[in-house]
Amino acid sequence: MLFLKNDYSVCAHPAVLDEIVKNNLVYSDSYCNDERCEKTAAMVREQIGDPDAAIHYIIGGTLVNKTCLAAFLKPYEAVITTVEGHIAVHETGAVEATGHRLLEVPTDDGKLDPEAVDRVCAIHNMDQMVVPRIIYITNTTEPGTVYTLAELEALRECCDRNDLLMYMDGARLAMALGAEKCDYDLSDIARLCDAFYIGGGKCGALAGELVVITNDELKPFFRQNMRQNGALFAKGMIVGMQFDVLLRDGLYQELGRHCDELGKKLADGIKAKGYKLAHEQESNMVFPIFTNEMVAELEKKVMFEDWEDNFDGTRVIRLVTSWVSTEDEVNEFLDMI
Amino acid sequence: MLFLKNDYSVCAHPAVLDEIVKNNLVYSDSYCNDERCEKTAAMVREQIGDPDAAIHYIIGGTLVNKTCLAAFLKPYEAVITTVEGHIAVHETGAVEATGHRLLEVPTDDGKLDPEAVDRVCAIHNMDQMVVPRIIYITNTTEPGTVYTLAELEALRECCDRNDLLMYMDGARLAMALGAEKCDYDLSDIARLCDAFYIGGGKCGALAGELVVITNDELKPFFRQNMRQNGALFAKGMIVGMQFDVLLRDGLYQELGRHCDELGKKLADGIKAKGYKLAHEQESNMVFPIFTNEMVAELEKKVMFEDWEDNFDGTRVIRLVTSWVSTEDEVNEFLDMI
Amino acid sequence: MLFLKNDYSVCAHPAVLDEIVKNNLVYSDSYCNDERCEKTAAMVREQIGDPDAAIHYIIGGTLVNKTCLAAFLKPYEAVITTVEGHIAVHETGAVEATGHRLLEVPTDDGKLDPEAVDRVCAIHNMDQMVVPRIIYITNTTEPGTVYTLAELEALRECCDRNDLLMYMDGARLAMALGAEKCDYDLSDIARLCDAFYIGGGKCGALAGELVVITNDELKPFFRQNMRQNGALFAKGMIVGMQFDVLLRDGLYQELGRHCDELGKKLADGIKAKGYKLAHEQESNMVFPIFTNEMVAELEKKVMFEDWEDNFDGTRVIRLVTSWVSTEDEVNEFLDMI
Amino acid sequence: MLFLKNDYSVCAHPAVLDEIVKNNLVYSDSYCNDERCEKTAAMVREQIGDPDAAIHYIIGGTLVNKTCLAAFLKPYEAVITTVEGHIAVHETGAVEATGHRLLEVPTDDGKLDPEAVDRVCAIHNMDQMVVPRIIYITNTTEPGTVYTLAELEALRECCDRNDLLMYMDGARLAMALGAEKCDYDLSDIARLCDAFYIGGGKCGALAGELVVITNDELKPFFRQNMRQNGALFAKGMIVGMQFDVLLRDGLYQELGRHCDELGKKLADGIKAKGYKLAHEQESNMVFPIFTNEMVAELEKKVMFEDWEDNFDGTRVIRLVTSWVSTEDEVNEFLDMI
Repeated sequence: MLFLKNDYSVCAHPAVLDEIVKNNLVYSDSYCNDERCEKTAAMVREQIGDPDAAIHYIIGGTLVNKTCLAAFLKPYEAVITTVEGHIAVHETGAVEATGHRLLEVPTDDGKLDPEAVDRVCAIHNMDQMVVPRIIYITNTTEPGTVYTLAELEALRECCDRNDLLMYMDGARLAMALGAEKCDYDLSDIARLCDAFYIGGGKCGALAGELVVITNDELKPFFRQNMRQNGALFAKGMIVGMQFDVLLRDGLYQELGRHCDELGKKLADGIKAKGYKLAHEQESNMVFPIFTNEMVAELEKKVMFEDWEDNFDGTRVIRLVTSWVSTEDEVNEFLDMI
Repeated sequence: MLFLKNDYSVCAHPAVLDEIVKNNLVYSDSYCNDERCEKTAAMVREQIGDPDAAIHYIIGGTLVNKTCLAAFLKPYEAVITTVEGHIAVHETGAVEATGHRLLEVPTDDGKLDPEAVDRVCAIHNMDQMVVPRIIYITNTTEPGTVYTLAELEALRECCDRNDLLMYMDGARLAMALGAEKCDYDLSDIARLCDAFYIGGGKCGALAGELVVITNDELKPFFRQNMRQNGALFAKGMIVGMQFDVLLRDGLYQELGRHCDELGKKLADGIKAKGYKLAHEQESNMVFPIFTNEMVAELEKKVMFEDWEDNFDGTRVIRLVTSWVSTEDEVNEFLDMI
Repeated sequence: MLFLKNDYSVCAHPAVLDEIVKNNLVYSDSYCNDERCEKTAAMVREQIGDPDAAIHYIIGGTLVNKTCLAAFLKPYEAVITTVEGHIAVHETGAVEATGHRLLEVPTDDGKLDPEAVDRVCAIHNMDQMVVPRIIYITNTTEPGTVYTLAELEALRECCDRNDLLMYMDGARLAMALGAEKCDYDLSDIARLCDAFYIGGGKCGALAGELVVITNDELKPFFRQNMRQNGALFAKGMIVGMQFDVLLRDGLYQELGRHCDELGKKLADGIKAKGYKLAHEQESNMVFPIFTNEMVAELEKKVMFEDWEDNFDGTRVIRLVTSWVSTEDEVNEFLDMI
Repeated sequence: MLFLKNDYSVCAHPAVLDEIVKNNLVYSDSYCNDERCEKTAAMVREQIGDPDAAIHYIIGGTLVNKTCLAAFLKPYEAVITTVEGHIAVHETGAVEATGHRLLEVPTDDGKLDPEAVDRVCAIHNMDQMVVPRIIYITNTTEPGTVYTLAELEALRECCDRNDLLMYMDGARLAMALGAEKCDYDLSDIARLCDAFYIGGGKCGALAGELVVITNDELKPFFRQNMRQNGALFAKGMIVGMQFDVLLRDGLYQELGRHCDELGKKLADGIKAKGYKLAHEQESNMVFPIFTNEMVAELEKKVMFEDWEDNFDGTRVIRLVTSWVSTEDEVNEFLDMI
């Protein structure tokens, strides 16, 4: 069975797992107060050029999102997100469960549009309404698109003129950084966002995400917020050492690039065979449109997500290449269609 | 530096880590829907003698506690706990953050007393008060004591007569099961509790806890509750395979016994040298009372928790033996005092 | 200054206030346990033909909505509402503050469409998504439209096939019942909805709304939910006696009819003068489209809501007739345009 | 039947109700933006000597408490209260429902002890624990005692040294101000507290409480918090005009004094007949200890609260004098015992 279903279905990149094996029985302090977490934090601060950034380690993207948003917002403050936003669709109301309203904006391509944000802010102008306070963006987005530097800067300006915070969900940040069109690095993201996270689970880590908070006002008592949300991991050193391996010499970005290159190869091959894509391929997710019969046939040999019924005899499927995918696997798929 | 600070400061038991290494690159379905999770669940159902038990995998004890209590309770329902209860002290109000009140009962030894529970229920008798609905117990308890079967059965009866659910936080369940005085096994716990969890993080697992729900009314939609709390781990297979290793042939119970035997040796040695313990030793936590000077001296050579100042020139410290501790380490400590 | 801004800007209908004056110093039991609350409840049960309906008294529509929805839903369950829904726009996230997600459906006329509800239910089909569980409708709706019996029955069928509850926000129920097109009474609403409220504050009461719960599963412990939300009014008798006056002999429906007739007169007059309405007039809210200049001129002499800028030199304003409005006031307005 | 059960069982002081009757049909702006609310606010600011105090109007003490505490606290912050505190016992977990933990301190007499507060703060010293942030006190307290100025000043100092806010629940503030031992006025309370409320419902108002916020940091967006909690009353003018009547010429304090004087007469009479009180009488609540037989006999002729069983053949009952109680009623009771 060919596996193109997602990018979180094997354990860890071997180099990451080796590091855990090597340090398995080393006594460490707990709750991310250990040397590995601190060393990695220092490295990240250096890489992003912000010596005062707060660095935290949490397992699971939903847990990061809900912890951050609950920590950053007052009760009456709301989050602006796209309608496709992960928090709006696939987190079972985790943010609302912390008491906050989402204000959802439609998009063409999964990217949040500054003008749409302006409009949301303009109409929320009375005390019987929530106060928009933060934008939530994903990069790569849910349909696999990637922000450009210019787009991120435009969002930052939009945030500044509307007194909004800017938060990036980086579950697939590796694939954004590895994208052909990506014209920025972690330091740009750190400069533009008030907070973001570097997702490990979908790109090489066994488990864990690294949270970066650059806005001083958001830093105090963040660990209390983590604990309250069940996000303060007792054995933080395990996450700290994984990110050391992933980020020290660019393995993280390299794995992202690998995913994206296979994504491009897959998309190009599909298009060369005359099929259309529902979304432009920009990273490791490819959304071809096939007939229902063809999808039924493929399901016998390939694991993938059945994404959307077009109700015209065709449907969209989602194919995902991961750091563990190979060119042979891509070719194997292309040979099937 | 001798390490007796806690039982969660090395990564994993080598057999557990080996299993991950061996299966590292095996494609699995996600969100605990994989074969490893299912196989382990089947095994646990067999071990506890409940073919219908719901089994779930979550990383982190606080996350388990808040997910379960939020899932099981209606908004106006409250949790009865001891004042020392982990949820009452060391989880930064995680349960209250889901909207629920804790009703706290003092204890002598960290164990919940059925008569105290009866009293709490008796006085909560009007619609301006919360409705007690579940008891929360830890086993081993925070001061390291262990429930007997008779005590658990008495609590079950108490729950039945007061229409309460019974939930056990098993962060240190291995050490309860390994205790000299323990006269029950997992199947008894499953029979008596409506839900409980088998803690992995403190006893051999790299990360992960295994939740067991036996009460049919608490089973539906639990995964939605997990997701909403950020507790649905994408790579569930990693937790599933760890518990396979830990529980298949009794490694889990064996490690607990090891911890407890070293705890006893440590306690006996300390008492033999003429020192008193603040709590009777029953598991892997030992609470000796030393003079302030002695504690200051020990701090140079041993890592431990400074537990409580007696304000009489003495203080209580907490020493914890773990599955990785050795008899030599215990002797090394005893030689120091 | 002519007042056409809303229907909650004088204190109470004289008959209602007289009743309070007359009973001012009568000792009563508290928290809605008094004879007046019970007598009114019995009368309402009789009027709606449901001897088992639970009747409660709460001050303020937002408080009713949040109390009911928090009481009726499990944490992962969501509310389906129109995008214009009061809970979605003008209650500062009150429902989300109790932890629940709103699923918002666009409309033409403020009324919830059963097919749109079906679609929402169809796509919420996995455990990473909230579970739709209740529909929230307002009657009259925010743009002043009124449901027909056929529409309400279609929504009930829709709820039944999707396992949804049906809840009606009756802040302006008097004006729905008084509408020309209304072909049902309170007993139909009680038969079709699982719960609804009869709004007093906008139609004759000094303060207070009457909540009706007909679904047996939603009745237990509702008072605990009220108390937790700050909605259990100590002097409930004041609300009970007001609804006795309003409902006993149809004063409530009569006042609604008065509002609506003036609304129709106002709408007809505006249309007769050649202006368009943004929404068809069906109750006591009229939404004419005037030029910006004309609106600026009117603002000097009339109090009304400036509703929406059309960005073409015209704008929509909202005019509201209330039970205290007179035909002379309507004519006075019509003479101005 | 003689009524000594509570102080909220008739509608309103005649002067208060007259004011509503007189202004019944005056058009007013809504949501406390009207002239009556503003005029009363200006008067209160003058009376308390704080021209910048924020003044709000809310109906119901529980609603005030939960709105204020939810507005003032970050998610991980906790409230210090006495174990008898109204929020800890009789509000069905309303504060926890907004996500916050209560830290409860035992008392002798219902008053919060600064040293106990210091101890709570001292032990909450790690990021796995909630952060104490505000003290909640009631005045009069639940057992009817009244703080002295020295006690309130000591609590303020305690708050300052522990970085705590100070909040007073003034449900029965009239009776505190009217107490013989009271050596302060509203301006002292405003100077010492960060926020407090002047309870109307138990002392002359038909419905409504007046919230005073003196701490600048707590003022912004309070109305959004009110709305989110269902506490923004559409017809605020009704509350505004009531407090104008109550506070303008001291009627509020006078009614409180009346309650307390009758309380003292009642207590003195009971003691003169040889009975003991469970709490020293300081305001309008009297807690005599009678035999079970005597209580059973009294219940036939008097309405009161059966407070506590002493399990020795005697019990404590609660008698409450209200602004509408008369000396004759007190004598009538004394003649019965």
